[in-house]
Amino acid sequence: MKKIRGGITAPRGFFQAGIHSGIKSKNLDLALILSEVPAVARGLFTSNSFKAAPVVLSRKYLNMKAHKAVIINSGNANCLTGKAGIADSVKISDELSSLIGCKKEEVLVCSTGIIGKRLPMGKIERALPLLISSLHRADSKKAANAIMTTDTYPKEISYSVKIGSRSIKLAGIAKGSGMIEPNMATMLAVVTTDIGIKKGLLNKALKEAVGESFNSITIDGDMSTNDMIISMANGLSGVMISGPGKAYTQFVEALKVLCLDLAKMIVRDGEGATKFIEIDVMGAKDVFLAREVGLKIANSLLFKTMCYGSDPNFGRVAAACGAVSKPIKPERVDIYLDGRIVVDKGVALTQKLPRTIFKGKELMVAVDLNSGKERVKIYTSDLSPEYIKINAAYS
Amino acid sequence: MKKIRGGITAPRGFFQAGIHSGIKSKNLDLALILSEVPAVARGLFTSNSFKAAPVVLSRKYLNMKAHKAVIINSGNANCLTGKAGIADSVKISDELSSLIGCKKEEVLVCSTGIIGKRLPMGKIERALPLLISSLHRADSKKAANAIMTTDTYPKEISYSVKIGSRSIKLAGIAKGSGMIEPNMATMLAVVTTDIGIKKGLLNKALKEAVGESFNSITIDGDMSTNDMIISMANGLSGVMISGPGKAYTQFVEALKVLCLDLAKMIVRDGEGATKFIEIDVMGAKDVFLAREVGLKIANSLLFKTMCYGSDPNFGRVAAACGAVSKPIKPERVDIYLDGRIVVDKGVALTQKLPRTIFKGKELMVAVDLNSGKERVKIYTSDLSPEYIKINAAYS
Repeated sequence: MKKIRGGITAPRGFFQAGIHSGIKSKNLDLALILSEVPAVARGLFTSNSFKAAPVVLSRKYLNMKAHKAVIINSGNANCLTGKAGIADSVKISDELSSLIGCKKEEVLVCSTGIIGKRLPMGKIERALPLLISSLHRADSKKAANAIMTTDTYPKEISYSVKIGSRSIKLAGIAKGSGMIEPNMATMLAVVTTDIGIKKGLLNKALKEAVGESFNSITIDGDMSTNDMIISMANGLSGVMISGPGKAYTQFVEALKVLCLDLAKMIVRDGEGATKFIEIDVMGAKDVFLAREVGLKIANSLLFKTMCYGSDPNFGRVAAACGAVSKPIKPERVDIYLDGRIVVDKGVALTQKLPRTIFKGKELMVAVDLNSGKERVKIYTSDLSPEYIKINAAYS
Repeated sequence: MKKIRGGITAPRGFFQAGIHSGIKSKNLDLALILSEVPAVARGLFTSNSFKAAPVVLSRKYLNMKAHKAVIINSGNANCLTGKAGIADSVKISDELSSLIGCKKEEVLVCSTGIIGKRLPMGKIERALPLLISSLHRADSKKAANAIMTTDTYPKEISYSVKIGSRSIKLAGIAKGSGMIEPNMATMLAVVTTDIGIKKGLLNKALKEAVGESFNSITIDGDMSTNDMIISMANGLSGVMISGPGKAYTQFVEALKVLCLDLAKMIVRDGEGATKFIEIDVMGAKDVFLAREVGLKIANSLLFKTMCYGSDPNFGRVAAACGAVSKPIKPERVDIYLDGRIVVDKGVALTQKLPRTIFKGKELMVAVDLNSGKERVKIYTSDLSPEYIKINAAYS
């Protein structure tokens, strides 16, 4: 598996476009990813009860056998817009499908941005011909740019992977920097690949990869109404996976790496983030508890602020651990900061900590519950005054 | 029921002291509340798995029939200190009890402050005679002052209540401004009363009162290792409650008012808080769901920051609602900001909001799930850059 150039269009047969339609005042706000041949597509969606119109619609559209394109707008979430909002998303897929010559259900629709406003449909409809004429195979980051909201840079990566003696490509773009909390896919991402794979298998692969990547990051613990990840596999590499086995395993491993790369990019670009934090929870009886401990620490404001201040105040790590819904045995818990043990079997060590500890840009916290064999890693960012500045006057 | 002067010592037979023992560099750090006659005492404690030594000990001590005193230190939580920490708390109760002439189990012990450091026992032991000689009945706020950590002012209140033709008094002090999240009692509080009441009834009354007060506030969603509320009833008013009935009901209602007053003081003094926010969740099928919705909104960073910025971005209220663990029906949900409807049956209203909306120091958010009859109020504060400043370099 190796990183390659080419971005989202690195896999054979994929095209991208990113244009300014006028939803935002000047930045790119409309993206299109298109496969020249029908592709197998699967998606994972937010579990928020308030699902935006495009989430409701795209979930339904995924019942189709194959898909041609994904259209994504930024600047407006098309959420809390009721039946009229659904009709808007349907109209976008309908008009785009007649321009590219497919059924409307073969066009998946995503939106991201402010909640509670109708889409400016006139602007979007007028922009569709330009969107299509802008499609290209070049490595332009245009689509990755057009899906950004408060992101400070586009997130895109592509890999080439050997499957047996042949090679396939896979690539992805993602957006997200606030309202990030794992629950299904907690951001917007599109993954393209030229492998051929059955729908059920692609679903399984996507779930596995997302569990250890997009579902293992949190920035602010807020769950979006619009999150989804769509994966499209068009088979143009000639490599076909029709059942479990070595090829499937290789593909899943590659997909995991790709998704984790994108997920980490999101954390690094967390709103106002100054630190990248890895929380390694081990020795858990089950993965659910390990995840809960990791997320409880990651989402603790007191933990996030101590990371911002580079203050090795490990009592807050213990307090967050102990706040999970199931009792844990404090007398077994070891806590490490940047690899150094600070709490040994529930008791704080009185050692003088080295001056450099917890002072870097990448912080490591490890918790060993010493109660089992499960291990989970959670990635997060610190909380800085800049986060508040960004979010105090968003609308 | 009427507010009276006198503070924590307003009820007959209670004495207070607050001194500087040297745990902190200069502020008061050691408090004592003492009843001249043995009192019935009950307590509620944090459900954090990492319980501080004084929490473990005081829970055990509450098995005694009566109690004489509560000693509280600030500046050090005596948490993550293992068996040695327990021994320290025992020693404090032991030495104090021999000075005041009771059993060690009749002295309840509380600590609050930094986690992971042993108590400076020499300083505390040397200070005990001064602590006792400082006991007084005056309205001095000394005890309320000595239990403060990052609080900016002491929290104390006292009431006189008519029970039938006679009057009793009840009073309370509390501390807390960060690490506030409901789960049992989420701060430190002592409530004194001169009513006479059976242990089991006092327990029941305390649980009821705490549910609607201390357990209905959140500042940062972080659960402390040291939280507890202790209530002492010494019977010196001559009024005795020995069973349920009108007198008990009057007492519970008064206790609720007192606890809610103290709880709201904590929220108003939330670290860095600039706003007081009431979240009113109604129309819920059950109180658990109503509480979860209220807390999910209250603890959402995006919600807290929009309150700080006075930005009526109600989409974040909806997103937080939808993120609860059980599905809710978005098509039934109404959302109000400062009394004005902004989301009607799951659809955002496109009205222009008045300029003054969401601009005050007291913000009101109401959510009607239109799915049942249960209603819960949650109180919280906003999130300002000052919170981060306070917590980035605490240790």
